[in-house]
Amino acid sequence: MCRTLSPFLFITSLAFGGVLHAADKEPIQPINAAKVANPAMVELGKKLFFDPRLSRSGFISCNSCHNLSMGGTDNIKTSIGHNWQRGPINSPTVLNASMNVAQFWDGRAKDLQEQAGGPIANPGEMAFTHELAIDVLASIPAYRAQFRQVFGQDKLTIEQVTRAIAAFEEVLVTPGSRFDQWLMGKKSALTKDELAGYQLFKSSGCIACHNGPAVGGNTFQKMGVVEPYKTAMTAQGRSAVTGKDADRFNFKVPTLRNVELTYPYFHDGEAATLTQAVDVMGRLQLGRTFTPDENAKLVAFLKTLTGKQPQLVLPILPPSSDTTPRPVPFD
Amino acid sequence: MCRTLSPFLFITSLAFGGVLHAADKEPIQPINAAKVANPAMVELGKKLFFDPRLSRSGFISCNSCHNLSMGGTDNIKTSIGHNWQRGPINSPTVLNASMNVAQFWDGRAKDLQEQAGGPIANPGEMAFTHELAIDVLASIPAYRAQFRQVFGQDKLTIEQVTRAIAAFEEVLVTPGSRFDQWLMGKKSALTKDELAGYQLFKSSGCIACHNGPAVGGNTFQKMGVVEPYKTAMTAQGRSAVTGKDADRFNFKVPTLRNVELTYPYFHDGEAATLTQAVDVMGRLQLGRTFTPDENAKLVAFLKTLTGKQPQLVLPILPPSSDTTPRPVPFD
Repeated sequence: MCRTLSPFLFITSLAFGGVLHAADKEPIQPINAAKVANPAMVELGKKLFFDPRLSRSGFISCNSCHNLSMGGTDNIKTSIGHNWQRGPINSPTVLNASMNVAQFWDGRAKDLQEQAGGPIANPGEMAFTHELAIDVLASIPAYRAQFRQVFGQDKLTIEQVTRAIAAFEEVLVTPGSRFDQWLMGKKSALTKDELAGYQLFKSSGCIACHNGPAVGGNTFQKMGVVEPYKTAMTAQGRSAVTGKDADRFNFKVPTLRNVELTYPYFHDGEAATLTQAVDVMGRLQLGRTFTPDENAKLVAFLKTLTGKQPQLVLPILPPSSDTTPRPVPFD
Repeated sequence: MCRTLSPFLFITSLAFGGVLHAADKEPIQPINAAKVANPAMVELGKKLFFDPRLSRSGFISCNSCHNLSMGGTDNIKTSIGHNWQRGPINSPTVLNASMNVAQFWDGRAKDLQEQAGGPIANPGEMAFTHELAIDVLASIPAYRAQFRQVFGQDKLTIEQVTRAIAAFEEVLVTPGSRFDQWLMGKKSALTKDELAGYQLFKSSGCIACHNGPAVGGNTFQKMGVVEPYKTAMTAQGRSAVTGKDADRFNFKVPTLRNVELTYPYFHDGEAATLTQAVDVMGRLQLGRTFTPDENAKLVAFLKTLTGKQPQLVLPILPPSSDTTPRPVPFD
């Protein structure tokens, strides 16, 4: 299941060593609160994240599929794109995404900035072009002024747009979950069943892939280790990026932070509930059928990973000017 | 243009009487700040307003077409509904909508509560049913608790849903515009050109229909008085409600509050800019071709009607439970 052995050794030693309270001895670390280095850039990025004028239709914004009211996802199997096209894969959460080893399920973008340009120009998603997006933004006086203030130059570029969006996404972290409170020493933060779930999460091997502060997101792993995963979805995962057949069906391990909010699960969105997801993961990845009681405890633990959601004041977008190119929702 | 003569008389006397500063002597009154009578109901309504689970697809919320980042509109000619259907008419702003004589362009809903149920069950919009919407909400424990707290009963009904949405919409008012500051005595709030625009707005007759605190919204009027309005849109307006041929092409006069943000204009969204809208209104409603200078002054005045937009913390929606019916984005 893992491409290196060391995580397994680490976990096994922990699993048999009992529960350790000091966060630095656990394979999961607490989420830190966001540090806002450049508030003006973050504020600009927030506007862009919510602005549907970055799409051809004028209807789809980043927030449409990474809805910050809903755990940074759209809670549907695969997203709805321009002209109601069916997306090829489940939209991963934008929450804590800065901790991912790379972006997209197949890791084809190295970071949030590289990711941010993708959906804008994807004909199946926002269906725009970077050039047209820049034309729109540059035609809006209030945006021009804000870009100038943040980037110190008159010329507006797609790199500025994606950098600002990434700066906003970097502050979308969710500290303060009950599990993190427990990690930081508050023993009463978890119930007995939740703690038993965490112990089982470690001892059964889930932790081998779902570890670190994001409880995942830091490696690519094969979907279907013990048993193959059956899906109608054609996505090939990591091999589409590396060209290596050995990477076929390797996907980025999703973060389990806020997993209570980010249903449905898996790259194809075919697991509707945590109970189903835990059952499939146990059988396909670990060769283990969890009993209903074990499953319930794992689910109880997973729900303690829901952190404090970013409290955002809805941005007020600057109006288009008379020269702003108008959206084309219907071709 | 008007069905009663009195507004005309009122305006004419003002236009020749010079500019009066006391708000009670002007045909437009300032917007009052929202009074929140029931904060828990407003908060519930806000969640429902932003919740796409009230649609069949799980993708479209009230905020999709009445986007509170964009003046309470979607800034496209006609909205995008379920399965990317093209809406039959331009989405009017939800801002200050509580001041409207009735809701929808044809006034077929008597108030905000009656309006709120419409799009949910409209096959071309959210494409859901009231029964399914209630099934979804009643399956979500946190919603059940909040409805019980607000309405004091266990049974969840569509009347509660629409009442809560209406309660939220009632607080979506936009006081504090520069024009309102001027109305309330701050002479420096308007430039000379903006004030000249207001004087022309009154003397040329715009004010006959666009008056009151919402600068419109309080009567139905014929679109195309002096010249017929040519449009490909089949909407018949008020006659579809009253069955009277005399009401054909009568539409609710839109509010001009925040008109800078609520483009494109008219029931068919065919006027992209304020300049175009003012020109068409002058010719078709008043039989007058405004000079470029007059048009610019009117537009300058109209832009002073942009009020303080509601500052809203984006709601965090309670997650679906295992028994919540799942969205059906693709049939």
